[in-house]
Amino acid sequence: MPPSPSSSPPSLLARLASSASLASRLSISRLFSSSPPAMEPTEDSLRKALAGRQAAVDAQGNAVRALKAGKAPKPEIDAAIKALNDLKIEKADVEKRLQAAVSGGAGDGALTREAFRHAVVNTLERRLFYIPSFKIYRGVAGLYDYGPPGCAVKSNVLAYWRQHFVHEENMLEVDCPCVTPEIVLKASGHVDKFTDLMVKDEKTGTCYRADHLLKDFCNEKLQKDLSISAEKAAELKLVLATLDDLSADKLGAKIKEYGITAPDTKNPLSDPYPFNLMFQTSIGPSGMLPGYMRPETAQGIFVNFKDLYYYNGNKLPFAAAQIGQAFRNEISPRQGLLRVREFTLAEIEHFVDPEDKSHPKFSGVADLEFFMFPREQQMSGQSAIITQLGEAVSKGTVNNATLGYFIGRVYLFLTHLGIDKGRLRFRQHLANEMAHYAADCWDAEIECSYGWIECVGIADRSAFDLRAHTEKSGVALVAHEKLAEPREVEKLVIVPNKKELGLAFKGNQKMVVESLEAMGEEEAFQLKAALESKGEAEFLVCAMGKSVKIKDNMVNISKQKIRENQRVFTPSVIEPSFGIGRIIYCLFEHSFYTRPNKAGDEQFNVFRFPPLVAPIKCTVFPLIQKPEYESVAQLISRSLTVAGVSHKIDITGNTIGKRYARTDELGVPFAITVDSQVDVTIRERDSKDQVRVSVGEVASVVKEVIDGHRTWSDVWSSFPHHTSASAED
Amino acid sequence: MPPSPSSSPPSLLARLASSASLASRLSISRLFSSSPPAMEPTEDSLRKALAGRQAAVDAQGNAVRALKAGKAPKPEIDAAIKALNDLKIEKADVEKRLQAAVSGGAGDGALTREAFRHAVVNTLERRLFYIPSFKIYRGVAGLYDYGPPGCAVKSNVLAYWRQHFVHEENMLEVDCPCVTPEIVLKASGHVDKFTDLMVKDEKTGTCYRADHLLKDFCNEKLQKDLSISAEKAAELKLVLATLDDLSADKLGAKIKEYGITAPDTKNPLSDPYPFNLMFQTSIGPSGMLPGYMRPETAQGIFVNFKDLYYYNGNKLPFAAAQIGQAFRNEISPRQGLLRVREFTLAEIEHFVDPEDKSHPKFSGVADLEFFMFPREQQMSGQSAIITQLGEAVSKGTVNNATLGYFIGRVYLFLTHLGIDKGRLRFRQHLANEMAHYAADCWDAEIECSYGWIECVGIADRSAFDLRAHTEKSGVALVAHEKLAEPREVEKLVIVPNKKELGLAFKGNQKMVVESLEAMGEEEAFQLKAALESKGEAEFLVCAMGKSVKIKDNMVNISKQKIRENQRVFTPSVIEPSFGIGRIIYCLFEHSFYTRPNKAGDEQFNVFRFPPLVAPIKCTVFPLIQKPEYESVAQLISRSLTVAGVSHKIDITGNTIGKRYARTDELGVPFAITVDSQVDVTIRERDSKDQVRVSVGEVASVVKEVIDGHRTWSDVWSSFPHHTSASAED
Repeated sequence: MPPSPSSSPPSLLARLASSASLASRLSISRLFSSSPPAMEPTEDSLRKALAGRQAAVDAQGNAVRALKAGKAPKPEIDAAIKALNDLKIEKADVEKRLQAAVSGGAGDGALTREAFRHAVVNTLERRLFYIPSFKIYRGVAGLYDYGPPGCAVKSNVLAYWRQHFVHEENMLEVDCPCVTPEIVLKASGHVDKFTDLMVKDEKTGTCYRADHLLKDFCNEKLQKDLSISAEKAAELKLVLATLDDLSADKLGAKIKEYGITAPDTKNPLSDPYPFNLMFQTSIGPSGMLPGYMRPETAQGIFVNFKDLYYYNGNKLPFAAAQIGQAFRNEISPRQGLLRVREFTLAEIEHFVDPEDKSHPKFSGVADLEFFMFPREQQMSGQSAIITQLGEAVSKGTVNNATLGYFIGRVYLFLTHLGIDKGRLRFRQHLANEMAHYAADCWDAEIECSYGWIECVGIADRSAFDLRAHTEKSGVALVAHEKLAEPREVEKLVIVPNKKELGLAFKGNQKMVVESLEAMGEEEAFQLKAALESKGEAEFLVCAMGKSVKIKDNMVNISKQKIRENQRVFTPSVIEPSFGIGRIIYCLFEHSFYTRPNKAGDEQFNVFRFPPLVAPIKCTVFPLIQKPEYESVAQLISRSLTVAGVSHKIDITGNTIGKRYARTDELGVPFAITVDSQVDVTIRERDSKDQVRVSVGEVASVVKEVIDGHRTWSDVWSSFPHHTSASAED
Repeated sequence: MPPSPSSSPPSLLARLASSASLASRLSISRLFSSSPPAMEPTEDSLRKALAGRQAAVDAQGNAVRALKAGKAPKPEIDAAIKALNDLKIEKADVEKRLQAAVSGGAGDGALTREAFRHAVVNTLERRLFYIPSFKIYRGVAGLYDYGPPGCAVKSNVLAYWRQHFVHEENMLEVDCPCVTPEIVLKASGHVDKFTDLMVKDEKTGTCYRADHLLKDFCNEKLQKDLSISAEKAAELKLVLATLDDLSADKLGAKIKEYGITAPDTKNPLSDPYPFNLMFQTSIGPSGMLPGYMRPETAQGIFVNFKDLYYYNGNKLPFAAAQIGQAFRNEISPRQGLLRVREFTLAEIEHFVDPEDKSHPKFSGVADLEFFMFPREQQMSGQSAIITQLGEAVSKGTVNNATLGYFIGRVYLFLTHLGIDKGRLRFRQHLANEMAHYAADCWDAEIECSYGWIECVGIADRSAFDLRAHTEKSGVALVAHEKLAEPREVEKLVIVPNKKELGLAFKGNQKMVVESLEAMGEEEAFQLKAALESKGEAEFLVCAMGKSVKIKDNMVNISKQKIRENQRVFTPSVIEPSFGIGRIIYCLFEHSFYTRPNKAGDEQFNVFRFPPLVAPIKCTVFPLIQKPEYESVAQLISRSLTVAGVSHKIDITGNTIGKRYARTDELGVPFAITVDSQVDVTIRERDSKDQVRVSVGEVASVVKEVIDGHRTWSDVWSSFPHHTSASAED
């Protein structure tokens, strides 16, 4: 199923990065765009070959017509026709190879990928792993419900996330509201920059994402119109590759140039314009306090930095974490669980001294080896390569050990969940994808039928976020370090004259004083110069929402040499951010397989979830409907509940084979079948191997394997094997 | 601290119940209103006594003045003055008793309650259990963040909820989005009826909850103005008791009558008008699809009934459950965590055959005894009484065994968390609190410093919710039961004539057909009568938003005898709904206590959380800063991590007493102190008892006690005791 790792074009991030420092901050909560299908290297030559064959067919066709017109002898005409047919066959062959090349690189690979996806999604929806929300009201695009097994998988993934990250590192977990006042998201940049470009059907008003329409047009042209020239194909591919870099104007121009119209009506389209992706609302009854549903959970951590730093005993480094809902009002959601309007994020903000980004536990992950895809490999058209993490850090490919530590921990997290190592890579952001302040950024990308999907972003965001909130709020989000010995530094000193300010501004005095004290060096010396030359100056007090007149007796601004006992600085933030729904969807694809029954006339679906992830750990079946067996099953069920093993008891009269098939399709790793009052069998899902265990012992054996304290092969070698007389399939 | 159980006035529910069938549905997600302080029975007589004393003082004052004016002999005047002073003292005494009576019933009980609350809340905010959200931007009323210990407590409570309810009963847990399209909440009634009455300051536009202003006025008058007559006091108390029943008009009239003005400006107020409490937003870019942030999680379950019923093998009973955020745009939030704009709900919808509400596991809870407060006790002014649950069900006080089973399970859940049994009661809704369709409804109320707080609602809502969505969506949310033998029933048969309807309504034919088929019996026979008498009739087609003309050849309506093999019915819903934030806040109050140090000159705060709830289970301290001790501490920390015991290691140089005090204040049940490389001590938080355990064994001993596999008293009797030489305090 898996196409091999291939290079990915710059993602949506590029556009953001070029437009604003916001870029990287927005990355994980909005991007994750899948790459268009990779193009085979032969495509270009095939297009040229096809043009040549077409010319040959045309020429030979003319020749045949000329022979016929000139009443040439029949054998001569027949020979020419045969030559024409041979040329047509040759052309058809090239056409076929070109078709294969453009539709996914591996013959009918694209088709296979879609068929595979169809099989997985069909199983997932039929067994209620997830379903479109509000189905009885025809649903809403981009909103999904997790049904019982999906909800259990999600809760297992989150519990493991909490154990693997929060508990292991003693992170400070917080839980903040989704409703967020505008000022917070103004400071973070989301109010101004969290947008996608949109076009409207000029007659019906239906909205489309501008880049999606252009992308669909190019892909369609490349895949379905085999007659386009190699030059045209190259142009379209360039558009696809630079799609995320296009400004509104350029995107609009391309849409006009290609004559793209509204897909549903063929009506003309408006020019592209930005649409903010946050769900807006209003807090309280007055209508005066605009708010948004948070687009990410990180801001809730940043605004609490001061309290969290204090909670941690005023010591760095420390990490805070949050799991919660985030919201993004997509223009036109696609790709099922991968691009939705409401999703669960799990985010970590690790605060660290910018002068010391080492990590005490890095050695514990340094030996890990996995696919990494550094900037250089991407730029030179190479593939991801298996790299030792320690080497990547020591060579400087990964910027620092803390970033490297989290890359390693994310690798362990994802592979323990059951993500296939061969379809997981860490891709470094290209220079144009990153904001100017970011030190480095790596995405954990997982390959699924939609291509390579960004599922976790791991970014060193330097001091950007804390500085933005310090500026907007006037509260210093900084850390302190006691110096071994005092040092002398030159420092800006602002001394407001509270008496004069009080006389001039009365009740507003405090706001003016705070604004004066919050000035940066440049602003302060501009004010000083103005006061010295004119005796007074206009000064903007944000908290009052207006400028006031400051006189030269109201504030003293100077630079003084000061002996400092401590260093005050804004910490750097290293942020691993997890799109939980995306990870789960990829996990579904990586875990899914089908196998035939014994007769070979039917295919059964299986999810090979590890016990950690499986929605239910065990099922209990009486082999046949018989009161004695049923009461043994109830007894075992009770022991499993006491042991905390989530399970399901199935006393329906279905055949045992059917019942196995039904639970395999839910990914249940073990089944206990009751066929006596003394011993029962435990069946392992993937091998279908069965052992016999006593009724009293069975719950604890299953518990041990589930908890990872015992392996199945150990169980297999410790208990008598069982060969089922009842045909399983 | 706890005032004893007292009767509570009808809650806000009353208003809703009287206005609409929506009432009970809205209860848990909006109400939980605390009762005003209970009035002592002596208050009325004290007011009368005070009026008598005042009259006596006035009369004696006049007598003194008359004596003085008549130049009476000095001894006579002195005697009269002494009598006057005695009367004044008597009056002051009555005044004092009245003051005590009105301010909480127990002398300075109200003051004590507030002081207690202040101490708890101060500790909670200082240790970051919770804090106002977006503090650096001056916060937003009604939004709170859980900091690290609060977040851990919340996650422990939710994990236990999942274990105690979802896993124990094999409930079908789902996870639906918060963003909800309007049509769903139109069907549930929230769009039309989920409102509070609001008044506006006519000059500034500031908004207030109308009932809050009237309530504050009455309480203030009753508590601070001792001169009002007993009659006036009775009137004000009647207003308070019927506050929730007042219509907008009556509420407005009372506000005018009492001359109530805007609290901040004393400006006049507008008439009260309804304000919808849902946060509104818009889904997608068109602005054409209104949506709301869900006010409760239950609707996500109801709309999925059909799929869930199928998932459960088309069998009743079964329960679905959901944990998630809910939103309520309060007009003016109060009472900290108890009335907030965003909160976590955990809801269960147990679907059951209305003809059989027995429960197979009821016997497991029938012997439980706790405070119940049935309707009759409330109406006759009695208190809650300790009742055996089995008796309450068998006597019919509780409507049915399934409802009773959940009451018992809720009792076990809350008390296992650490809620004080003496301050927990199950209060039955009064007849006027319940919607007409509800069979019965009980609230688990917990007493805290704000009074009795509704924390869990347990309602038998009959078939209301499924019917509402069946009607609106046209999808039948029903269950089927195979009958043992077929039965003959008379049934409404509606046969639309599709040909005629097609000719008349063209593209709308389908909507008309569906509307005709969806008619109830009464409506159908009215239509039949109209068609027979007049040959045609107006007929409302909801989906088209208008009435159409139906002719008598377009539909055939009759009653026919039909042999049925199955019974088709709408299941009843029994809904336990948990306000998680409220439970947690009450738990904080019930767990908090202070104790003096040995010198008795300082008070230390302690939370007596059971291990199940405690944010951290254990702390590890080296007794003094010494590398050997520190490495033992690290070793123990590692074993605790492996054992999955959340803990904190504290290697600061603070005194051991200070470190104990700091973790007692977080409610950490055990502390391991390292004072040797062989043995260490384990200290239990509440008893402060210490035992000595070997380094190798300590993690597993703590783990056993945390998991409930061993009690502390067993540990205490198994290991040598330790008497600390270092003064703990």
